[in-house]
Amino acid sequence: MSKSTGSCQGFLHHVFDYETPKTLIIPSIRVGFVFRFTQFLVLLYVVGYVCVVQKAYQETDSVISTVTTKVKGFAFTNISDMEPRFWDVVDYNIPPQGDGSFFVLTNVVMTPGQTQSRCAELPNPSTICVDDCDCVEGYNDPRGNGIRTGLCENYSSIVKTCEVLSWCPLETDTNLPKRALLAEAENFTVLIKNSITYPKFNFHKRNILSHINSTYLKRCEFNRKTDPNCPIFRLKHIVSEAGEDFQDMAVKGGVLGILIDWSCNLDWWARKCYPKYTFHRLDNKHPVNNVAPGYNFRFAKYYRTAEGEEVRTLIKAYGIRFDVIVFGTAGKFGIVPTIVNLGAALSFLSLVPMVADWFMLTCMKKRDLYSRQKSTYLVEESEVESACLKNP
Amino acid sequence: MSKSTGSCQGFLHHVFDYETPKTLIIPSIRVGFVFRFTQFLVLLYVVGYVCVVQKAYQETDSVISTVTTKVKGFAFTNISDMEPRFWDVVDYNIPPQGDGSFFVLTNVVMTPGQTQSRCAELPNPSTICVDDCDCVEGYNDPRGNGIRTGLCENYSSIVKTCEVLSWCPLETDTNLPKRALLAEAENFTVLIKNSITYPKFNFHKRNILSHINSTYLKRCEFNRKTDPNCPIFRLKHIVSEAGEDFQDMAVKGGVLGILIDWSCNLDWWARKCYPKYTFHRLDNKHPVNNVAPGYNFRFAKYYRTAEGEEVRTLIKAYGIRFDVIVFGTAGKFGIVPTIVNLGAALSFLSLVPMVADWFMLTCMKKRDLYSRQKSTYLVEESEVESACLKNP
Amino acid sequence: MSKSTGSCQGFLHHVFDYETPKTLIIPSIRVGFVFRFTQFLVLLYVVGYVCVVQKAYQETDSVISTVTTKVKGFAFTNISDMEPRFWDVVDYNIPPQGDGSFFVLTNVVMTPGQTQSRCAELPNPSTICVDDCDCVEGYNDPRGNGIRTGLCENYSSIVKTCEVLSWCPLETDTNLPKRALLAEAENFTVLIKNSITYPKFNFHKRNILSHINSTYLKRCEFNRKTDPNCPIFRLKHIVSEAGEDFQDMAVKGGVLGILIDWSCNLDWWARKCYPKYTFHRLDNKHPVNNVAPGYNFRFAKYYRTAEGEEVRTLIKAYGIRFDVIVFGTAGKFGIVPTIVNLGAALSFLSLVPMVADWFMLTCMKKRDLYSRQKSTYLVEESEVESACLKNP
Repeated sequence: MSKSTGSCQGFLHHVFDYETPKTLIIPSIRVGFVFRFTQFLVLLYVVGYVCVVQKAYQETDSVISTVTTKVKGFAFTNISDMEPRFWDVVDYNIPPQGDGSFFVLTNVVMTPGQTQSRCAELPNPSTICVDDCDCVEGYNDPRGNGIRTGLCENYSSIVKTCEVLSWCPLETDTNLPKRALLAEAENFTVLIKNSITYPKFNFHKRNILSHINSTYLKRCEFNRKTDPNCPIFRLKHIVSEAGEDFQDMAVKGGVLGILIDWSCNLDWWARKCYPKYTFHRLDNKHPVNNVAPGYNFRFAKYYRTAEGEEVRTLIKAYGIRFDVIVFGTAGKFGIVPTIVNLGAALSFLSLVPMVADWFMLTCMKKRDLYSRQKSTYLVEESEVESACLKNP
Repeated sequence: MSKSTGSCQGFLHHVFDYETPKTLIIPSIRVGFVFRFTQFLVLLYVVGYVCVVQKAYQETDSVISTVTTKVKGFAFTNISDMEPRFWDVVDYNIPPQGDGSFFVLTNVVMTPGQTQSRCAELPNPSTICVDDCDCVEGYNDPRGNGIRTGLCENYSSIVKTCEVLSWCPLETDTNLPKRALLAEAENFTVLIKNSITYPKFNFHKRNILSHINSTYLKRCEFNRKTDPNCPIFRLKHIVSEAGEDFQDMAVKGGVLGILIDWSCNLDWWARKCYPKYTFHRLDNKHPVNNVAPGYNFRFAKYYRTAEGEEVRTLIKAYGIRFDVIVFGTAGKFGIVPTIVNLGAALSFLSLVPMVADWFMLTCMKKRDLYSRQKSTYLVEESEVESACLKNP
Repeated sequence: MSKSTGSCQGFLHHVFDYETPKTLIIPSIRVGFVFRFTQFLVLLYVVGYVCVVQKAYQETDSVISTVTTKVKGFAFTNISDMEPRFWDVVDYNIPPQGDGSFFVLTNVVMTPGQTQSRCAELPNPSTICVDDCDCVEGYNDPRGNGIRTGLCENYSSIVKTCEVLSWCPLETDTNLPKRALLAEAENFTVLIKNSITYPKFNFHKRNILSHINSTYLKRCEFNRKTDPNCPIFRLKHIVSEAGEDFQDMAVKGGVLGILIDWSCNLDWWARKCYPKYTFHRLDNKHPVNNVAPGYNFRFAKYYRTAEGEEVRTLIKAYGIRFDVIVFGTAGKFGIVPTIVNLGAALSFLSLVPMVADWFMLTCMKKRDLYSRQKSTYLVEESEVESACLKNP
């Protein structure tokens, strides 16, 4: 080999001379087997676990969703405290707009004919009085129901309480019926329309699947086994799938989650994208670690008398709030996660020779022979002189 | 080299002796070129695709958002079925709070003067009767409008139907006007205020950009080309950008998504973060695979007569629900994803010598020469005796 | 070594012969130290930063949440413009359902007794007229309050304006009280119940922690220092933590975010999952780059007179909208991210020999000796003949 001194050629040598490691071939089946077996284990993990089980080669995106709901059903109530009354959707479904969270009234404490006026407070240790001196005018008791006027009035024939300025008569919500007023609500149905988008993959879908026809939709009812794709749910069914009893829950109300899981695999070779419905009670029904159990809120219907006075019917509404919660992640083959995971796997493959070397140099009988031929100790210059090396 | 037997020195040797692979330098331009070219391809992929296109060196965070909306406009209706009427925001915008989902009423079926009473059912095959025997008292037909009283009454002069206990008179929503009542709603405008946060990056922004002044905001109107940053949208414009016709959609209602994409690159050298608006119809307008097409809901205004009887005006409201859907992912340089991606790239770089070796040992003329000098077969001890190896 | 010609044995040799790189051992403490130190730095980064600080070995999931709120408190107003009035939750909390977004009314412009009729427009340059010719019949001014009738009427004794068909009398919202009507609202409290789920980890939790008992919940009030886990918040406290003044904000309203951060580490050895509350004002309070500052909306209470005419009380409600925004990411040990991060770290470890080689071949005195013994130039066949190499 002739030595070139041209600097350009030197540079070319520097860039294009290819430096490859010298290797020693060990014709040992045992070492070879350990090497191949370790390689196989790594490949198995990469192909089997990372690719097939975890689908780590996929990019992911979160769902964007819109929900429309429509409740159907009516009920008739005839209890002693109240006039017989017919209830339709407009009466018990609040708010009426039919978005992802809807409320079905099941129990009610009504206080009709409230006006801005004065009346005796509900009796309790802090409101009971003997004469006007016990009642401080203008006092605003956070647990009371109004601003004290400073007078002590008869609440009933046996007890006197401080008079307050408030919406009178005051609401008495202590004797809530043990059985829900709208017990029939368990047979109401709700139609849930849900359309989702995975913006990264430009993928759109509805929970009313394309193979379902309108006739089926008019008569079907969701059932995990027989009708898993019907978007119409009977309230009783929802509550019982959540492991609760409708009549129990209806008395004091609660919050029930209708969870729609849109986890999807959007790879073309395995396209699978269906909504999966599950139901969970979301509020805490246990009385410990709890405050204001159940679910209720107050609202009022405002009227005006012929004389122009404002009157309202106060309604304390107990019921079940259904929250439709849509979640999910879609995965689709993506070049970056694939590369990253392949790269990580390759790193592990590059560990395999270390394992085989270690095995070869510690567990084999001929380890000293292998070691001597594999590794060379640096030879000092003086020794090199006399050595048989012919390097230029 | 003298052999040290001190255990400490032996340990130091074990830890600090540096073992480096012996290499063979091949002065072949072709092999060198294949090596460098493969290296170049890997680097190109890493720099070009992973870093520039996919920005895989970034950490990501999802958007948190709050939306306020305010609809403006009024309309006057004068059709034969109804008294002339003036509609302002309070009349047609339900709910009035102006959150991310608002409804604009466009068509309406009003049933004034409903009271809790008895009336003949709407005629259909299951309600038509000849005498009282056809009507079971207390029967609650899910498709009907009330609880049967057991009587058969005249619905009109020619047909008799079962009497029901319900809110009477019953609503007849079959002859919905073909042209939307509030056709003028297409000229209403909505102001959308949206403020977002990327909590991981402590980044806050509003859709009213800081370079926009109040004077502009008072007169501008969104237009993708001329005013892409104006937060005031004409309803007709929104609907037509979604590929729909407002007057068509207004008759039976629908759900329209106003999607605000806040995908942001928060790296300081390329800070770009503007809202991008797109519009999509979210409900299914096709009559197949559908139930209850369009969008409507019922609500009522409750009154009380001078005699104290409760009366309500039932309103079946058809209209367009606009859902403001805010989504997006922000990316910012992060040390962990950078390291992970660099690591994966390095793994691939470590594959390059394999490619070059394979090329050298299979495609080159001198492959046998290369192979002989690169790989050494293990030499058995007996042979070693007579060999010219001078290792200590 | 005997050469086998059997093809099966040849294949076995091909598969199971183990090829290991030949190495040169350099007994130099300095090179060894550079090698070990670089290795140590990489390991430090992997263990210290990636694992401990960034927890990159974790899989993550986003939170799913449901919120219930309940406002408490009442107020009494007695100002000159309005009758003395008592306000309870039903009057000032809109919508009443108690979901994640609730509104507390603090200021109000009431316009009682509106009917569908005709009245003179509010005076401004475009509505003032001299005679009927100035008013075009049917003209619908987007900034006006109704449809012009074509007449010019006396607005007051000194100014005439065009008459419009509208809900009359018109609202005049220009003289908004400088001090909020419901200044007392700052002492109202809100109970926030929040239950969350991480579906990937099947993890459920409530913001009312399990070690809190009901007695405590009845009297506690959130305070970052003394009661960080109490779910009852005084409105004034929320607003002041957001850096705002309640009385200031109450006049024109605003939007206030109650952010609940549920970032959790679900690894069993470090399980930590508590809600962290922060408060931010979400709307823009600065008058520049703004339109319609504050937060208000209009709603109406509809009545019917004894003669059957529809009358409404129009209410322009100013107040604070509280948006409960729940966010967070849970992390838990996951095999795939662990492998990916380990793989990336290994890639960097495989770089360490390159660093050490570079150091050895450029910075050491004996670099030529090392270089000569490490790398061998390819020896051409002719030279090989005469060389002392004993390869088979």
